[in-house]
Amino acid sequence: MEIDEQHDAALAKVAEMASGTKFAMLTTKEKDGTLRSRPMATLQLDGEGNLWFFTSLSSPEIEETQPDQQVSLSYSRSDKQEHLSVSGAAQLVHDREKMKVLRSPWLKPWFPKGLDDPNLALLKVSIMAVEYWDAPNGA
Amino acid sequence: MEIDEQHDAALAKVAEMASGTKFAMLTTKEKDGTLRSRPMATLQLDGEGNLWFFTSLSSPEIEETQPDQQVSLSYSRSDKQEHLSVSGAAQLVHDREKMKVLRSPWLKPWFPKGLDDPNLALLKVSIMAVEYWDAPNGA
Repeated sequence: MEIDEQHDAALAKVAEMASGTKFAMLTTKEKDGTLRSRPMATLQLDGEGNLWFFTSLSSPEIEETQPDQQVSLSYSRSDKQEHLSVSGAAQLVHDREKMKVLRSPWLKPWFPKGLDDPNLALLKVSIMAVEYWDAPNGA
Repeated sequence: MEIDEQHDAALAKVAEMASGTKFAMLTTKEKDGTLRSRPMATLQLDGEGNLWFFTSLSSPEIEETQPDQQVSLSYSRSDKQEHLSVSGAAQLVHDREKMKVLRSPWLKPWFPKGLDDPNLALLKVSIMAVEYWDAPNGA
């Protein structure tokens, strides 16, 4: 993943955990009120405190018509018992130039057509709060 | 953690992931509408499809007065790129006999007074849906 320079300690920790784990568990509130999580590959932490992901418009995690939907992102290094939680606001972004910048080999298993897949979109999560935990008492 | 016999394939997968990772990221909806996650040590998957945790009444993840609050639990084995998501309904339970059964050395860093801590309670999550992912194409 790509990480722009971070001037904030919390965002630097997000950068460290996102680099170390790659996949975040993205939690959203579904229409029926339940909370649902699924793994998402982190593509970028930009210089403005936004995390970027690819997503499919055929099964969107968030609604096109609902800007700034509240989400949670969890990064866990299970072997080191390190956990980081991001609370943020998500929106779908259609920007082919940005997609070109963020394109990676990781995209292929999910989107075999690559950037030409009409279902491909970007998911942008603006970070509002960050919490971090590691193992207590060295356990 | 303690695992009762599971007759359901999805619950057996929950048992396997909870045993392998110990900590789940529990996501709840806060009063201000944001989603927030924090690590929770899994104590038991009982024979009725409920996951059990210890929690503190001084900073409860869920409201005492709000039964069946929707939550998400994520178990991630970052080294194996395995992820499991549980959608469920949570409630606080005050049951000293159950606490005695679930007591473990892991409790001590968070609750030095053990079962005599007046802030200690049980959090029960009734599993409603389970999803599981592993690395695509052996990546």
